[in-house]
Amino acid sequence: MLPTQYAGTLVLVLDLCGTFVFALSGAMAGITHKFDLFGVLVLSFAAANFGGIMRDLLIGAVPPPGISDWRYIAVPIFAGLAALRWRSAVERMRRSVQIFDAGGLALFAVSGALKALQFQLGPLTAVILGMLTGIGGGIVRDLLANEVPSVLRGDVYAVAALAGAGVVVGGRMLQLPSTAVTLLGAAVCFALRFMALRRGWQLPVAWHAGR
Amino acid sequence: MLPTQYAGTLVLVLDLCGTFVFALSGAMAGITHKFDLFGVLVLSFAAANFGGIMRDLLIGAVPPPGISDWRYIAVPIFAGLAALRWRSAVERMRRSVQIFDAGGLALFAVSGALKALQFQLGPLTAVILGMLTGIGGGIVRDLLANEVPSVLRGDVYAVAALAGAGVVVGGRMLQLPSTAVTLLGAAVCFALRFMALRRGWQLPVAWHAGR
Amino acid sequence: MLPTQYAGTLVLVLDLCGTFVFALSGAMAGITHKFDLFGVLVLSFAAANFGGIMRDLLIGAVPPPGISDWRYIAVPIFAGLAALRWRSAVERMRRSVQIFDAGGLALFAVSGALKALQFQLGPLTAVILGMLTGIGGGIVRDLLANEVPSVLRGDVYAVAALAGAGVVVGGRMLQLPSTAVTLLGAAVCFALRFMALRRGWQLPVAWHAGR
Repeated sequence: MLPTQYAGTLVLVLDLCGTFVFALSGAMAGITHKFDLFGVLVLSFAAANFGGIMRDLLIGAVPPPGISDWRYIAVPIFAGLAALRWRSAVERMRRSVQIFDAGGLALFAVSGALKALQFQLGPLTAVILGMLTGIGGGIVRDLLANEVPSVLRGDVYAVAALAGAGVVVGGRMLQLPSTAVTLLGAAVCFALRFMALRRGWQLPVAWHAGR
Repeated sequence: MLPTQYAGTLVLVLDLCGTFVFALSGAMAGITHKFDLFGVLVLSFAAANFGGIMRDLLIGAVPPPGISDWRYIAVPIFAGLAALRWRSAVERMRRSVQIFDAGGLALFAVSGALKALQFQLGPLTAVILGMLTGIGGGIVRDLLANEVPSVLRGDVYAVAALAGAGVVVGGRMLQLPSTAVTLLGAAVCFALRFMALRRGWQLPVAWHAGR
Repeated sequence: MLPTQYAGTLVLVLDLCGTFVFALSGAMAGITHKFDLFGVLVLSFAAANFGGIMRDLLIGAVPPPGISDWRYIAVPIFAGLAALRWRSAVERMRRSVQIFDAGGLALFAVSGALKALQFQLGPLTAVILGMLTGIGGGIVRDLLANEVPSVLRGDVYAVAALAGAGVVVGGRMLQLPSTAVTLLGAAVCFALRFMALRRGWQLPVAWHAGR
């Protein structure tokens, strides 16, 4: 088993990276919807932290770091201001919202699964929580912008988070080296999502799924 | 007082039945909105489990079975796949989304109230939590599909959940036999909702409610 | 430090006043959207209590008073019925939804920050929780009505809650008399929001914020 201390640091680093990239995706969504300065920061914060806050509420880890650890609050504010400041650069990167979103998804899916394991939860719960940590922030971001959450759109999204969390939990159950397993999980999730974006991979749409 | 063991089993059975029928309502909503395969499963899961997850968060029962008990996860997946597989049969049953929804509402209102009583909460809280367990999943389902939640539409919905939960809590306070009270509560809720659908019963719309 | 007993009473009184005015704002929003009687009451309840419920979930104070204390349940029902009964008077007060909303924002921002301090949370968390308590109910109200939350609209809203909570937390850290600090915090928040409404103060819109 991974020493708790080390697992904690790993979760923290992954979480903060995921926080930054998700915050960027939130800020860009806010800019696209022409929200005001604070609205953009709220969307940065929501996209960055609500996945983790949901996870922490569900495992009883209160108050969640998302509202009590200054790093989880400073990072989205910084990301939001950066997105606003270099808006024109951001505009040129049209697909970047989705790419950043894919990065955040991968990091959060992995860190969510690891945190659940740290809290002694079973493998199934850890995989579900990893997925929820990954998709929760984006869902709240899209709901606040009054859009159907992208997780329900016709492409590979939650499946990627599920795969990433599954790799981490499976690897840990097989006692594989945890850093390797963590990186592999994140890579699997990001690769799945990235390829889905690049090649237009889609899950079958419900309407055509039956016979 | 009902032995805790028995109450626990009763809550479980009612919860799983409610989970199945709410999951069907979620899956059908997802199919109607032409979400992809995973989107349909997410909507199944959300409709089935978010009422109970809200209840469990509010009473501090974490992690909620909705994310940690494989039965609460397997049932919505099975229901979602079944709805997709027999889509054409589902299409013919246009009103079935609402009928299933009424069944889920009744079962969840009752099981939510019972679980709150099990956790030693007061009668008022138990009634409120019964209603919230009943309407919570449907609210999240509708929000995810970017619709105004059906609970706010002009017909008898939350009132039915409130009545069902009220019957259960009232009966338990009067020391009446709990199985009878439970079945009666579920029947009252379902009958109210079903008749409202059938006969177009509506609550007065706010616009015309004053004088 | 403020005696806990007194702080508790202060939080309660502020919370119930905030509950009443937020419930009015919720009821008015429901009337505007022509929801039915129960829909209006649900919106009253949601606007009044979800900010506090979010705060309580995040600090682990379960079950939250919003579902277990009869006063937090009776007040929104009373406010909702009053708004329905005197609808025509309400109609004449077009801006009143926003004014009541400003009052609720101020009271909840302050009571949320105080409750967080009572629970021994740090100053940053207390400020964030004050803001969240203030804006949470309105966000849920707007989401249920299928609108973009007003917190993201182009005017001073969450900033006012942040300022009010900041005054309270700052004053308490400086050991200033707590009643004065509390009233000052609420006044600062309300004045900021009121002036923003009156004079059309806006935060810079994101689209124009960069260079």
